[in-house]
Amino acid sequence: MDVWVGGGGTSEVAPGDRLADVGEFGLIDRFLIALTETGVEPDPEHGVLVGPGDDAAVVAAPDGRVVVSTDVLVEGRHFRRDWSSGYDVGVRAAAANLADIAAMGAHPTALTIGLAAPIDLPVAWTLELARGLAAEAAAGGAVVVGGDMVRSDTLVISVTALGRLDGRPPVLRSGARPGDLVVLAGRLGWAAAGLRLLSDGIAEGPLVEAHRRPTPPYGWGPRLAALGATAMLDVSDGLVQDAGHLAAASEVAIDLWLAALRTLGGPGITDEDLLTGGDDHPLLATLPVGTRLDEDGPVVVGVVRAGSGVTIDGDFREGPGGHDHFPAA
Amino acid sequence: MDVWVGGGGTSEVAPGDRLADVGEFGLIDRFLIALTETGVEPDPEHGVLVGPGDDAAVVAAPDGRVVVSTDVLVEGRHFRRDWSSGYDVGVRAAAANLADIAAMGAHPTALTIGLAAPIDLPVAWTLELARGLAAEAAAGGAVVVGGDMVRSDTLVISVTALGRLDGRPPVLRSGARPGDLVVLAGRLGWAAAGLRLLSDGIAEGPLVEAHRRPTPPYGWGPRLAALGATAMLDVSDGLVQDAGHLAAASEVAIDLWLAALRTLGGPGITDEDLLTGGDDHPLLATLPVGTRLDEDGPVVVGVVRAGSGVTIDGDFREGPGGHDHFPAA
Repeated sequence: MDVWVGGGGTSEVAPGDRLADVGEFGLIDRFLIALTETGVEPDPEHGVLVGPGDDAAVVAAPDGRVVVSTDVLVEGRHFRRDWSSGYDVGVRAAAANLADIAAMGAHPTALTIGLAAPIDLPVAWTLELARGLAAEAAAGGAVVVGGDMVRSDTLVISVTALGRLDGRPPVLRSGARPGDLVVLAGRLGWAAAGLRLLSDGIAEGPLVEAHRRPTPPYGWGPRLAALGATAMLDVSDGLVQDAGHLAAASEVAIDLWLAALRTLGGPGITDEDLLTGGDDHPLLATLPVGTRLDEDGPVVVGVVRAGSGVTIDGDFREGPGGHDHFPAA
Repeated sequence: MDVWVGGGGTSEVAPGDRLADVGEFGLIDRFLIALTETGVEPDPEHGVLVGPGDDAAVVAAPDGRVVVSTDVLVEGRHFRRDWSSGYDVGVRAAAANLADIAAMGAHPTALTIGLAAPIDLPVAWTLELARGLAAEAAAGGAVVVGGDMVRSDTLVISVTALGRLDGRPPVLRSGARPGDLVVLAGRLGWAAAGLRLLSDGIAEGPLVEAHRRPTPPYGWGPRLAALGATAMLDVSDGLVQDAGHLAAASEVAIDLWLAALRTLGGPGITDEDLLTGGDDHPLLATLPVGTRLDEDGPVVVGVVRAGSGVTIDGDFREGPGGHDHFPAA
């Protein structure tokens, strides 16, 4: 881990300053200060026993287990700097990981950040990234506890999130049983529709905002676990593809109802967005039949059956179901 | 986290296959199989309660705390594929992180891997990377529990390591006191000398091997902690620079003895290698005066004094002390 010693000082930068202008330690000092501008300190009150500034951090894992997940974002593949601010990219990078923790039924506790960045990257952009990471971490109940910054021709952001289960068993992908309800918490198709609008040159509106700053329903992870969720995952590659992962892991079939999915959409969101869009990171869970859901809670979008694969209103889905990061030739 | 479901199958690849030829899931299947070829399974016996194949992994944190550290390696900056095999790079990426965990006085438990890779990267190289990561993880007592693989123009490997303290307080950088002994466990200057030989076209020998596959003394982390180490870090940016970090954090001065440091070197290792070389990841610790050290244990290389900064035989070191990842213009 980088040293990440906060030397007091300031997160201010001269306009136009690039990473090469401030050096590694100048960057780390400012980055660390920007992280704490959210007001959440990496201290024992927030479950952080040793924060940034040493070889490693030490984080509370109260029930003797820690949940851990890593996701990587690459400029040009997962974000574009002309479409998203540093703050937005920080929010998205944190959200992708925090949602994975929630999908285990866990509460996020801490993030570490691996940043590989070109030396001509503006320092101001990097500090906005820190602010976005810290703000979304706080939204999920977590704190950034350290990381590493290195030089690279391509801008790559690797985030690792930790979480706590508070004594509950983790909710895996493999526990769905025929007869279970399939429910979805959070937004579906919004980010995909927003990305399409951005490609068409439309830079504003709620869908574009949903792409720039997803709002995964972190709190529903532990709540669905407490309701008895038999399986859960966060939708990141597209609903059909991810429901397929859950169905395969549980050795069941999942039938999704398009009319129910459409209640999660809205103007400008196509059926394709609902079925194949990632990046909103809603939670897809299966619950024992008869489970009562709050009026403002998850929506029942289908049912688990014996068999295999994913059907939409009983028909197998044709064509590609989502995102492959290394498309086969 | 990526799905990382092992679908059985094989880690074999056709000669010449690139990532684009096998697709994301074809790569993940093979990567996962290559990881387990070490014989260490991600199972409860090895402290892994949920391994690869879900949104996140769950790792034992027996005393209710988890140590966490992240380091990033970039092709062309931290390794060259013409100088190091995939296996070597895997060893180095794991070692950098495991050493950070050991430097807290902790035992490594788990690694996650964030891999951003060009689509023309040979699949075989990637699987060698997996084998190197898994083998070095096992050398440190840890297991690879998951990760994420994405496409990128630059090859970037981000590793996060977790560890356990077994009830001991973490050993920070800030606890050194005037009068303490300064000790060093592990090799010093070997990797730097090996890197110089590689630049000169010499591709073999113990120094080159030390660069390709560092062997940090992981076990000495907890042992030095048990001996009462007052401060500790792993030397990754160079001894003078890292000793300076420890001195600054502890608000003390550190005097190093060149004659003692030279006993850790050998033929082909210059004083400059000893003072500024990183990548061997030895552990630098301070111990109460009077601490007895085994004959085959760490070497006393200096003493802590009141004051600030790092001196070599009483003289302040001139010139640059190590590595800055974003050199200031």
